[in-house]
Amino acid sequence: MSTGGNDTVRTTTDRADVERSGINVIRALAMDAPHQARSGHQGTAMALAPLAHVLWTRIMRYDAQNPYWPDRDRFILSAGHASILQYAMLYLTGFGITQIGSPTPGHPEVGQGIEVTTGPLGQGFANAVGMAIAEAQLRNRFGIEICNHRTFAIVSDGDIEEGINHEAASLAGHLGLGRLIVCYDDNRITIDGETKVARSGDGAARFRAYGWHVEELGEKADDLDEIEACIRRSMALIDRPSLVVVGSVIGYPAPESAGTSAAHGYAMFDSEIAATKEIMGLPADKTFHVPDSVLSYYRAAGTAGATERANWGKRKEVYKGNREELEACLRATRIDGLPPKLPDWSPGESIATRKASQAVLSALLSTVPGLTGGSADLTGSNGIDITTEGVFSSSDQEGRQIYFGVREHAMAAIANGMALHKGSLPVVGTFLVFADYMRPALRLAALSEAKVVFVFTHDSVGVGEDGPTHQPIEHLASLRAIPNLRVIRPADTTETVGAWQVAIDSEGPTALILTRQNVPVLSDTSAPQVATGGYALLDPPDARITLVGTGSEVSICYEAAAVLENEDSVAARVVSLPSWELFQERSRQARDDVLRPGLPSLAVEAGSTLGWRQWVDEVIGIDRFGASAKGAVVMEKLGISSDRVIKKARSMLSLDT
Amino acid sequence: MSTGGNDTVRTTTDRADVERSGINVIRALAMDAPHQARSGHQGTAMALAPLAHVLWTRIMRYDAQNPYWPDRDRFILSAGHASILQYAMLYLTGFGITQIGSPTPGHPEVGQGIEVTTGPLGQGFANAVGMAIAEAQLRNRFGIEICNHRTFAIVSDGDIEEGINHEAASLAGHLGLGRLIVCYDDNRITIDGETKVARSGDGAARFRAYGWHVEELGEKADDLDEIEACIRRSMALIDRPSLVVVGSVIGYPAPESAGTSAAHGYAMFDSEIAATKEIMGLPADKTFHVPDSVLSYYRAAGTAGATERANWGKRKEVYKGNREELEACLRATRIDGLPPKLPDWSPGESIATRKASQAVLSALLSTVPGLTGGSADLTGSNGIDITTEGVFSSSDQEGRQIYFGVREHAMAAIANGMALHKGSLPVVGTFLVFADYMRPALRLAALSEAKVVFVFTHDSVGVGEDGPTHQPIEHLASLRAIPNLRVIRPADTTETVGAWQVAIDSEGPTALILTRQNVPVLSDTSAPQVATGGYALLDPPDARITLVGTGSEVSICYEAAAVLENEDSVAARVVSLPSWELFQERSRQARDDVLRPGLPSLAVEAGSTLGWRQWVDEVIGIDRFGASAKGAVVMEKLGISSDRVIKKARSMLSLDT
Repeated sequence: MSTGGNDTVRTTTDRADVERSGINVIRALAMDAPHQARSGHQGTAMALAPLAHVLWTRIMRYDAQNPYWPDRDRFILSAGHASILQYAMLYLTGFGITQIGSPTPGHPEVGQGIEVTTGPLGQGFANAVGMAIAEAQLRNRFGIEICNHRTFAIVSDGDIEEGINHEAASLAGHLGLGRLIVCYDDNRITIDGETKVARSGDGAARFRAYGWHVEELGEKADDLDEIEACIRRSMALIDRPSLVVVGSVIGYPAPESAGTSAAHGYAMFDSEIAATKEIMGLPADKTFHVPDSVLSYYRAAGTAGATERANWGKRKEVYKGNREELEACLRATRIDGLPPKLPDWSPGESIATRKASQAVLSALLSTVPGLTGGSADLTGSNGIDITTEGVFSSSDQEGRQIYFGVREHAMAAIANGMALHKGSLPVVGTFLVFADYMRPALRLAALSEAKVVFVFTHDSVGVGEDGPTHQPIEHLASLRAIPNLRVIRPADTTETVGAWQVAIDSEGPTALILTRQNVPVLSDTSAPQVATGGYALLDPPDARITLVGTGSEVSICYEAAAVLENEDSVAARVVSLPSWELFQERSRQARDDVLRPGLPSLAVEAGSTLGWRQWVDEVIGIDRFGASAKGAVVMEKLGISSDRVIKKARSMLSLDT
Repeated sequence: MSTGGNDTVRTTTDRADVERSGINVIRALAMDAPHQARSGHQGTAMALAPLAHVLWTRIMRYDAQNPYWPDRDRFILSAGHASILQYAMLYLTGFGITQIGSPTPGHPEVGQGIEVTTGPLGQGFANAVGMAIAEAQLRNRFGIEICNHRTFAIVSDGDIEEGINHEAASLAGHLGLGRLIVCYDDNRITIDGETKVARSGDGAARFRAYGWHVEELGEKADDLDEIEACIRRSMALIDRPSLVVVGSVIGYPAPESAGTSAAHGYAMFDSEIAATKEIMGLPADKTFHVPDSVLSYYRAAGTAGATERANWGKRKEVYKGNREELEACLRATRIDGLPPKLPDWSPGESIATRKASQAVLSALLSTVPGLTGGSADLTGSNGIDITTEGVFSSSDQEGRQIYFGVREHAMAAIANGMALHKGSLPVVGTFLVFADYMRPALRLAALSEAKVVFVFTHDSVGVGEDGPTHQPIEHLASLRAIPNLRVIRPADTTETVGAWQVAIDSEGPTALILTRQNVPVLSDTSAPQVATGGYALLDPPDARITLVGTGSEVSICYEAAAVLENEDSVAARVVSLPSWELFQERSRQARDDVLRPGLPSLAVEAGSTLGWRQWVDEVIGIDRFGASAKGAVVMEKLGISSDRVIKKARSMLSLDT
């Protein structure tokens, strides 16, 4: 993109002047906003004003009037604390922010001009890898006339130090993501002081070891042409991702705090702000000051991509490829009018829900063409084998199977980036116990409403011999505690079908919780009822107690109900409660119809009892770590058995003999 | 260590023969045990038998009869799935395992001869870094006559791919941990197939970039002298950690499955086990077969360290240094008979509990000499400034302040390693919302009962402007769900003192949940009562309702109680419930005395309501993500206010006007 069309800038000197003014204005805005809010981080934003200027006026392809143009370049501020930098650029180039200085979140939140919610360090970097994967896949599937853009990111020392960076950078290098360009703000300062208190070593060498191209800008963080040259060299190398190391001075050019950790998060004193503005030749007494020449320069840059966007629209109109599939990918849902042919099973069979999930996923691949993903080295175990659709690799970026390696955390954050990019519907998985490894990214999926299907198998102590390190206990409760995360634990194959239907047909993230071990296919379960969150499977009119279960414990409720009927002549209701979140969305009346608060109620679930008392009177669960033995033995030993349910029910009904 | 004292081996040829037999025996045991258990992982154990043989017979300093000798070399099997390798070595060298083939956990669990619980990948590597830190600190504080050992680890591809590896390896290089020697099983195979499906790049170059020494053993994984030479060269370099890359063949020498991912986790067929034994010259029809010559060779190795241990005991007896301090460090508690002088505050003051925690920690440093730790780049914010005791660095390994960098996950796992090593009492912290980053290590702290103090500050939406990415919601519930983790959220400065006392005086891990914002110092709070988990602060005889709070919400209960008294003439009880786990340990009667099930009860806490209904009738909490604004504004907006408590209490008591 060139800014040559900008009438207000006629000569090279004029242009150099207005660019210099523009950068000073960005730096002043970066001081004014945190100062007004009495909160925020000016230091990084000030230091990186030249880089942002180059990206938004010389490099990136976008149209501020059409922030959701699918073929725009993506920009991610992984260093989310420097949000004022992004807000300033969005305001100046003419995105929806009408007034600079108006309240904005302390860290970027997904919305127009902001691709992902950032702040928790390392996440944005991995999101960018996900965006680059989504772009490459769309380009290779649907053609360069439909998808032909790049992903840019700015990352900080914290982003680089976090473990997720290793996972994401290593995978990006392996997958040869040549359209990914990450600018690393190497300012040698963190909150605890100089980075050298906690880090030495050669960061560039590490990235080269991953197969990245590395440009080292040295101390020329203010040299616009040099910045541009580094980035353009990186853009020219299409077989590998690039890291541009920008040796910046935090808080530059503030006379007192530049280059110190004080410049990071503490709002500056009035006097230093005034002094800094004076150094930059800006009026010291004005806040949020943007000269007309600067504003019109940036606004021109903000619309410079409009023609390309319009051309893209025309190309898409006459697109000869599979339009239905493309649209379904972009909307991350099923092809219109094509009800998928889903597998079904018969009562009497016994099948692990992870196996059922694999069958459903396989059946959905053709009708939900966006489905793309894989596992953190447990592809078969998790039932996320989609190799029929090809394997995504550096030599074939069209494939839909991704081998993430033992990298749970990056896998989840990459999935978030893919989902927020649009064009794919990521499905990623691991053992439930290792959901812990991806928790920061799970939270961001929920917060940013990224449509990702998380598949968590081996969902209880039923995993058996691998022992307590591999047996989830607290994980269901911990996932249910995350706002906006839809957690579904299907009772059998039928409910597994229903769970997938909910995941595909809803917005936002879904976590499927699936057994390792076989569970019976039940007669009364219903796929459509999964969407209600909970429903009665057995509802005799003379019932004296309600037994509630999820997943593999629903069949235990059945066994207990049969014994109570036969031995005690007690009729029991059986309720399956596969999703608390879906159930919570229903009316109080609807929930009461299912749970019948008038009757005694007893839940059983092979996990922490935390939270169950909001639904039932009593609960049988596991509030200790598991043990290494055969799954059925551990279940029995830890009290997850029909015997214990029966005993407890008798006690609740005062039927103890 | 030399095995020269072994009478049964007289010549070099004899020794070579028995060593070769020994390795074959280890490989056979590695097949027999998983085969008998119908579960387990033989492939890696078979491949690494020579490495294990060298470590246990030629390199490591230990005394199998005294597995807890403090100055033993530490060994960590980060690749925990290969547990049979460790069990075989412990059996052969004479640790407490009396019979090979008896039931053992699928992954190693901390106990005699097993330093840490492993299995979740990447953790053991970081634990080893923690052990090396603890060793270096003890050596520098108390002298080489007291502490003079090394830490060895075996890690797998998964350990290397996990993000925590980057954090831990980078910090280990920075800190110059020369006594740390990590053997990397480079077998080019993971569960999903060859490692190259998910990884390329140069792993050795990455470690060199961190400042590590790297030895590449190439394909000589079976050459005992070569293995020993690589390790000894690494041991000679005392200024940096070493990685020994062992190019092994998984499942070697099994004729069918060696070198394939099938050798990893699937138990072998009888026929292949028999064929492999034949190849190795062992009787094909015998299981758990250990020839006497082999057993006596290993048993001799197992006692070869006895003399050194005895000498160490003599040195310790005449130790001239600060014995009291040494003992307190080794027991991770306070110096006997020295009650610490703790700070106190006066009602009327208003102080953030994180500030109070910093003051208590500072006051404890001299009486609890093991306290060592720091923060993931938030040292001041978290109140873990212990720089008065020196900073641990490559040039000064005596310091007690550790700058972990932005590496939450490794920080927690390193703390686990330090705690399980003994000699220090680690205290580590970050913002509560970033507890998510360290969750796998938190779980292992709880599972292995590592005595670590986790400090989590900025504990609610009260953090304010940083917004939802930095505002914990689900975190308290998620931590409470972890078995064996003691979570304490003190109401004020007084309870903060009590919380620290519990953390110091108990076994296992404690999580302190502390406010960013100031909270009032209350009149009725009690430090000793924190150990009870919950107690009444206000208990009027004519009370009609119980208000329950934790942390910053206890003062809200007070405000509400005052209004109910003044405006409604309703007496209210106020209960502080700082620790659910401690409260749960008490008798039902004791809990009822505090909560009084006969009265209506209402809890308020600025976080997820999940789980509260096990204690109270109604709960006011936050079941959505936060928002970016001033802390007090967000609290009010999300309903954490005395007004809402009053309104709800009136409704519960049918006092609505």
